[in-house]
Amino acid sequence: MRMVDLMERKRNGGELTKTEIDEMIEQYTAGGIPDYQMSAFSMAVYFQGMTTGERVHLTQAMAASGDQVDLSGIEGVKVDKHSTGGVGDTTTLILAPLAASVGVPVAKMSGRGLGHTGGTIDKLEAIDGFDVELNGDTFNRLVNENKAAVTGQSGNLTPADKKLYGLRDVTATVDSIPLIASSIMSKKLASGADAVVLDVKTGTGAFMKETEQARELAEAMVDIGNGAGRHTTAVISDMNQPLGYAVGNALEVKEAIETLKGEGPDDIFELCLALGSHMVTAAGLTETTEEAKEHLRETVHSGKALETMKTFISGQGGNPAVVDDLENLPSASYQKEVKAAQDGYIASIEAEDIGTAASMLGAGRTTKESSIDLAAGIVLHKKIGDAVQRGDVLAVMHCNTDNTSEAEEKIVSSYMIEKQQTKPPQLLYDVIF
Amino acid sequence: MRMVDLMERKRNGGELTKTEIDEMIEQYTAGGIPDYQMSAFSMAVYFQGMTTGERVHLTQAMAASGDQVDLSGIEGVKVDKHSTGGVGDTTTLILAPLAASVGVPVAKMSGRGLGHTGGTIDKLEAIDGFDVELNGDTFNRLVNENKAAVTGQSGNLTPADKKLYGLRDVTATVDSIPLIASSIMSKKLASGADAVVLDVKTGTGAFMKETEQARELAEAMVDIGNGAGRHTTAVISDMNQPLGYAVGNALEVKEAIETLKGEGPDDIFELCLALGSHMVTAAGLTETTEEAKEHLRETVHSGKALETMKTFISGQGGNPAVVDDLENLPSASYQKEVKAAQDGYIASIEAEDIGTAASMLGAGRTTKESSIDLAAGIVLHKKIGDAVQRGDVLAVMHCNTDNTSEAEEKIVSSYMIEKQQTKPPQLLYDVIF
Repeated sequence: MRMVDLMERKRNGGELTKTEIDEMIEQYTAGGIPDYQMSAFSMAVYFQGMTTGERVHLTQAMAASGDQVDLSGIEGVKVDKHSTGGVGDTTTLILAPLAASVGVPVAKMSGRGLGHTGGTIDKLEAIDGFDVELNGDTFNRLVNENKAAVTGQSGNLTPADKKLYGLRDVTATVDSIPLIASSIMSKKLASGADAVVLDVKTGTGAFMKETEQARELAEAMVDIGNGAGRHTTAVISDMNQPLGYAVGNALEVKEAIETLKGEGPDDIFELCLALGSHMVTAAGLTETTEEAKEHLRETVHSGKALETMKTFISGQGGNPAVVDDLENLPSASYQKEVKAAQDGYIASIEAEDIGTAASMLGAGRTTKESSIDLAAGIVLHKKIGDAVQRGDVLAVMHCNTDNTSEAEEKIVSSYMIEKQQTKPPQLLYDVIF
Repeated sequence: MRMVDLMERKRNGGELTKTEIDEMIEQYTAGGIPDYQMSAFSMAVYFQGMTTGERVHLTQAMAASGDQVDLSGIEGVKVDKHSTGGVGDTTTLILAPLAASVGVPVAKMSGRGLGHTGGTIDKLEAIDGFDVELNGDTFNRLVNENKAAVTGQSGNLTPADKKLYGLRDVTATVDSIPLIASSIMSKKLASGADAVVLDVKTGTGAFMKETEQARELAEAMVDIGNGAGRHTTAVISDMNQPLGYAVGNALEVKEAIETLKGEGPDDIFELCLALGSHMVTAAGLTETTEEAKEHLRETVHSGKALETMKTFISGQGGNPAVVDDLENLPSASYQKEVKAAQDGYIASIEAEDIGTAASMLGAGRTTKESSIDLAAGIVLHKKIGDAVQRGDVLAVMHCNTDNTSEAEEKIVSSYMIEKQQTKPPQLLYDVIF
């Protein structure tokens, strides 16, 4: 196999075989294929795409490039959940105990965040004592006992993807559906779950601005997952404004607990029911998603979901008292109101800017090394379609710094207020399976 | 300027400015832009192309990346001639004295070959004593005195092109018209001529198999040359079979001298008249190419072209006696006939295979370090459209080795003999200016 021949074939719209892709990824990971060939190959893929077969083979080859988690010690159909990322996305914190409470084994590996807020792992650290670095045995035991455990990534998962992603980032080859889909799914395959439920975001605050793009990505990932023998479903959901009201680490934990009590924001609960119902059916616990949703509503209503949250927290060494008294979560020294400058209705909210403002307040990392202020963040008071009067509170900044003018400006400018009332955006667009 | 932004813009079909291209090439040459970005950029160019402005800027930036030859000490409009390469292409050896004999200053920088035969510089070395390493002063003086001099490339011409070409070769980005055209023309600009006449080959034995591709390349190079202020013309000529009859170094010198005597192959003479007439008009010596062709025919007829060949040879220290007696050229120990196995007409000749056979006999280099047998090569006896009978000589192999079976097989298989007579291919397809 000569890499230049594979490059030429792909450039001309041809297809690569499984053996060729395996060898290419193996050699690239080992340093036998130089970056200058892999970057030009990625650009050829940008223009020529990849067949479903090629996508499956690429994903499997990247998953096989490093450690692969063995979850066979866990009983039942293990279901993973993944979101393509948005602002204020608290769903994992809710779905882990929610799905677990009806019997779905949730064995979730998660990351720290580099962005507007921390990742799920950072958010969980807002709970006093919560241990996010479980060894494999403890992890498996906790999922068997409590049906839910979340741990940070350990080991050397998908080194080929890490290397390729780093290269794509500096060679204008990030925006390629087959490469994005393979990158995400390689990590899912290596993480060992039997089934995957994907939350693909679309809208101004998402990577995929247009619903059609999001659908294309969702279909690509579902085809790869199913092609690799993992039951995969994708929900396409809205990110034209932040999800729920809270953006920040401890603030999102609080919102998650409120949601498990049945007192959270409607959009978050509705999305969790949609994603959760696919987790339940993927685990083979109900025939239909409607039936699954009924179970999920009941488990919230009965308080069982909240109990599972407590068990989940205490299982990982955290203080379950946060569930009963949210005051046990870290809180910020200052709460500063951001007010509307005019009357009207909220026409749009730039989710990205709200995220950036939260990061300015300390909620997110700007480099891998920087630390996070777990208490910092923003709580929105108004969302699209809401009426406002001049002087009404649009959002409250939670922070441990006095220096908030830049963040405040960002929040103000992210809100567009108009005379005419706008309908809130649709939350769920489609389900791909 | 961030390279990744330029890459993204090109990928999306946008245009780069002169400043951006200048900076990109400057930084790439200096090592400030890594190969992995340049290769992916080249792949984006493969798919998105480049505007005429971008092509001119790229070519000029590559020409400016190293030494640039100053021919201002030479009187008149200096005209360069370049061929995109074929088998048996002896035209430079003829055109230099031919055009010089009617007053065109031909200051030609040429290379050694890596291919079927040597390059023009190698061929000239078949003439005893011929010095192909002239310093700048001698070169300029000889062109002023004799109107013609040919020297090997010295100095560091177009290092950006060398680096980029090497990269394209291993990243499947050679076949891009804007990149091919810029590569060739950057060397022409750096070589300092005022005008350029291009011979763009098309056919089975050329890089451009289809006339349409050849026309596209010709137009691209003409646009770049004219855009950079050099009067540029391109002739599109046939390479569906070797040009003339001789393939080899000394053999081609012999054929060149015969042509200057008016006794050479018709196709070579016709092509030299076409290219030469554009050199004459570019130099401003006649108004029309028809008038120029008349001058060129006269100069051959009168013996002046042959005299100029002698002056040109002796000017560079070579033995002019070769012109009067071709026996003074190196000759091979063996001459072996290759015979037709059937009756019929020659339907096609794979020029590439004839070239490969010549190289097998020692006429060409296979690596930069290997040496050339100047006497070795092939003289064809039959060309497309010719009638043959079983046992007729198709070609004669000239060689200093007994081991010719592989070359003979190549020659036999390169000839297709059919019952029906085929018309010889058209020699000249178009002129682009």
